[in-house]
Amino acid sequence: MSKIRHALSVTREADFAAWYQAAIAEGQMAEESGVRGCMVIKPWGYGIWERIQRLLNDRIKATGHDNAYFPLFIPLSNFEREADHVEGFAKEMAVVTHHRLIADGKGGLIPDPEAKLEEPLVVRPTSETIIGDAMARWVQSWRDLPLKLNQWANVVRWEMRTRMFLRTSEFLWQEGHTAHATPEEAKEHTLTMLEVYRAMAEEDLALPVIAGEKPEHERFPGAVETWSIEAMMQDGKALQAGTSHYLGTNFAKASGIKYQAQEGGEQFAHTTSWGVSTRLIGGVIMAHGDDDGQRVPPRIAPWQVVILPMLRGNDDDAPLIEYCDGLRATLTGQQALGEPVRVLLDTKPGKPAQKRWDWVRKGAPIIIEVGGRDMENGVVTLIRRDQLWDIETGKLNSQAPTREVAGQTIPGVLGDIQQALFTQAAERRDANIATGIDSWDGVVQFFANNGKYPGWVEVQWSKPTGDALEQVVEKLKVEKLTVRNVPRDATPADGTCIFTGDPAVERIYVARAY
Amino acid sequence: MSKIRHALSVTREADFAAWYQAAIAEGQMAEESGVRGCMVIKPWGYGIWERIQRLLNDRIKATGHDNAYFPLFIPLSNFEREADHVEGFAKEMAVVTHHRLIADGKGGLIPDPEAKLEEPLVVRPTSETIIGDAMARWVQSWRDLPLKLNQWANVVRWEMRTRMFLRTSEFLWQEGHTAHATPEEAKEHTLTMLEVYRAMAEEDLALPVIAGEKPEHERFPGAVETWSIEAMMQDGKALQAGTSHYLGTNFAKASGIKYQAQEGGEQFAHTTSWGVSTRLIGGVIMAHGDDDGQRVPPRIAPWQVVILPMLRGNDDDAPLIEYCDGLRATLTGQQALGEPVRVLLDTKPGKPAQKRWDWVRKGAPIIIEVGGRDMENGVVTLIRRDQLWDIETGKLNSQAPTREVAGQTIPGVLGDIQQALFTQAAERRDANIATGIDSWDGVVQFFANNGKYPGWVEVQWSKPTGDALEQVVEKLKVEKLTVRNVPRDATPADGTCIFTGDPAVERIYVARAY
Repeated sequence: MSKIRHALSVTREADFAAWYQAAIAEGQMAEESGVRGCMVIKPWGYGIWERIQRLLNDRIKATGHDNAYFPLFIPLSNFEREADHVEGFAKEMAVVTHHRLIADGKGGLIPDPEAKLEEPLVVRPTSETIIGDAMARWVQSWRDLPLKLNQWANVVRWEMRTRMFLRTSEFLWQEGHTAHATPEEAKEHTLTMLEVYRAMAEEDLALPVIAGEKPEHERFPGAVETWSIEAMMQDGKALQAGTSHYLGTNFAKASGIKYQAQEGGEQFAHTTSWGVSTRLIGGVIMAHGDDDGQRVPPRIAPWQVVILPMLRGNDDDAPLIEYCDGLRATLTGQQALGEPVRVLLDTKPGKPAQKRWDWVRKGAPIIIEVGGRDMENGVVTLIRRDQLWDIETGKLNSQAPTREVAGQTIPGVLGDIQQALFTQAAERRDANIATGIDSWDGVVQFFANNGKYPGWVEVQWSKPTGDALEQVVEKLKVEKLTVRNVPRDATPADGTCIFTGDPAVERIYVARAY
Repeated sequence: MSKIRHALSVTREADFAAWYQAAIAEGQMAEESGVRGCMVIKPWGYGIWERIQRLLNDRIKATGHDNAYFPLFIPLSNFEREADHVEGFAKEMAVVTHHRLIADGKGGLIPDPEAKLEEPLVVRPTSETIIGDAMARWVQSWRDLPLKLNQWANVVRWEMRTRMFLRTSEFLWQEGHTAHATPEEAKEHTLTMLEVYRAMAEEDLALPVIAGEKPEHERFPGAVETWSIEAMMQDGKALQAGTSHYLGTNFAKASGIKYQAQEGGEQFAHTTSWGVSTRLIGGVIMAHGDDDGQRVPPRIAPWQVVILPMLRGNDDDAPLIEYCDGLRATLTGQQALGEPVRVLLDTKPGKPAQKRWDWVRKGAPIIIEVGGRDMENGVVTLIRRDQLWDIETGKLNSQAPTREVAGQTIPGVLGDIQQALFTQAAERRDANIATGIDSWDGVVQFFANNGKYPGWVEVQWSKPTGDALEQVVEKLKVEKLTVRNVPRDATPADGTCIFTGDPAVERIYVARAY
């Protein structure tokens, strides 16, 4: 084993929040930018986002959506039309008020008082109102429906407490917006997109999620129904990984999205919106990472296989590079998980062991080291990131297949790693969901007595509304707990409400959350 | 011929600017958003941008760049460090001054005076200064160089007079930023990226361009050298379609990008930046469009082949749809121009002739109509967008190959169309560049006497600097003319300077420009 430090500077067990920051920094994912609340997404982190984009974009197009692009700036008056919506976002909006800078006479610059905008512009926190304006122009008749749009964009929400990937003032996302003739069709589409997100999370990110409806008090501002996918992180907290909203006619009325019905008469359209963001990357780190850094699922790894020749930095390296390039070429010509294998032959200067551990911390699924002796023996040294250590000996785990065998088997191994990460995360989650608790006191006890990382509880409630709901929200708040969602495919409620003791109507997950 | 109007509402000859707006509107590319200077890019327009992105992104990665993402907001103080740079952009910057809205007490909203930012933030007009900050953190030693980054992003320049795609307050682009150890390497890279742009324009957009260096007075603010690709539009004006800048150590000094040299000692890095934007789409429209609308080159067409069954809107349509779907499946399984053919089977409701002309105006390269009789005869009706009319008869030009022949030949026809569009644009350009003019009076005469769309002149000059250059700039301004660039691969100057009569040192193109 190398003397070079490999593990992250802090373990998950010691301090999960610090571990998360270390995994990001040492995995070369992102860093603070110096601009309040905004991060720089570094090439490895952005490469993961590009992979997520590519795969999700295909899913979004396969469900009949077109991409389009709408303005970054939204006139302030747009927000005045939907009361709940502005109430939800007004406190965290970046506002553009000037369109020119001038010298301040002291060597600096100030916004030019002569160049003040008549109507301030808001940097979009989400685009329902501006896309609603376009839909109102584009929808005239039932023949124009459904209208199914998607946008990949940056959005800004002025968050007071930020955390990289999970909550930043600017973030990248996709936002889908659709308009339909009937509430039934719009509701069905809300669930279609929820299912797209579930499949993306589980199949691409190897992230097991629970798809369900958010309770009333957790709805998107202006929505009639909000659905989410919820994932468990390794500290037992929940991460809302994507949301899909049925907006009723709220935004159609605010923007005037009306159509001539087939049976005559003018009707308001029923709209939906749904989004996932760079927050997903935070979820991947916290669900799959270990004390040696990240473990990136092969489907979303920018490089699935990294080949590291043990170079001397002189002309003698040429045969070794050629030997490695043969494996690279073999693999690139093959398919893993339905796509050509993505292989990097890394010949950058640097100490071999240092480079190996850099790639371990970045989480490349397979690392292949090749030294002169390997070449002589016709083999390569293969390290699976998901099986880094031999549990019995505590030593670094590696195999030495021949180059030919490596070329044949690696595509299958990538599929195995994808599956193994999902299975581990699913087993960990399922082992950390408590059931059978039937009172609020029991819930409070559970979270008090189950250590640093207590997990979730699945309980039942009577779906309170009005004052009763407000009391529930207050109780949750005191304990820093949240209702995650009402799982879509749960068995029917059969117990009592933890809050009231009344007969329950739904199952819910209660957890701490990001 | 159909009674449905097909040609745009205005011809190129009658009013090129109005024709351009009509081509955009009737080709369903984009529209005004209602937000000052910002447009909505509609699905067909955005689909073209996605194609350009995909192809250019591959070229950028093939030349060794990684994508990353940097903040939208740039602290005002960043701009104070490079004097030329801020001078160039200060007059058109959107400035964020507040982070919250509150009710104004009259039913409206205003920026909250309590939530004023201590330091205003500028919405990025370009990212040299913020990426320079990151480069200063990332570059320590010569081993960290070259550092080659690219970003796909939106940027904002508060333009007073906007025109869709060509000049909008917000636009989409890619901006590459690299740092190198030596001026030679940085200059060489500037030209490498210029060549990437030339190849992209000519091979993907079928847009012939002249690659060359901008004269001193047209440089990017803060650059040492600015290079461009210049294309001729059908009104004879020039469009700057992409630029590549050698920035010397100007931004390295402003941001502190320093490295330990291999031979010892600390040095400033030499940086480059280069970008192309959604303006390219305007160039495609103005170079290739005709009086029936757009003609999109097959490489960047979201759909290369659109199949239109002449549907009756009832159950009898099923066999016809199946017949068309057979052709769609055949074509989708084949390659044209190195990629799987992109085919849309368009079964949306609508009158067949109306749908045909919608696709003509959008510029789909091949439109295939199939009626019941075609199916009985085993043929399809094939329309090439670049050969829409029979020149002799003035009638719509179509062929009726069997379905099998169509399936076999269409991939090759797409290649032919790509080539034909390039050749037409190149011949038109070459026919509209005048040579042999050796005086400024001659240039002025040329533009006065050559009608509405005079084209360009290739002339020679002595590359004036200082006061002499200022006089030249003044002369150009009076005539609304510009120096486009000094072509990179021109034969050496052999004549006299049009401005001074002195021996010339360079050839230049003079033209009106967008």
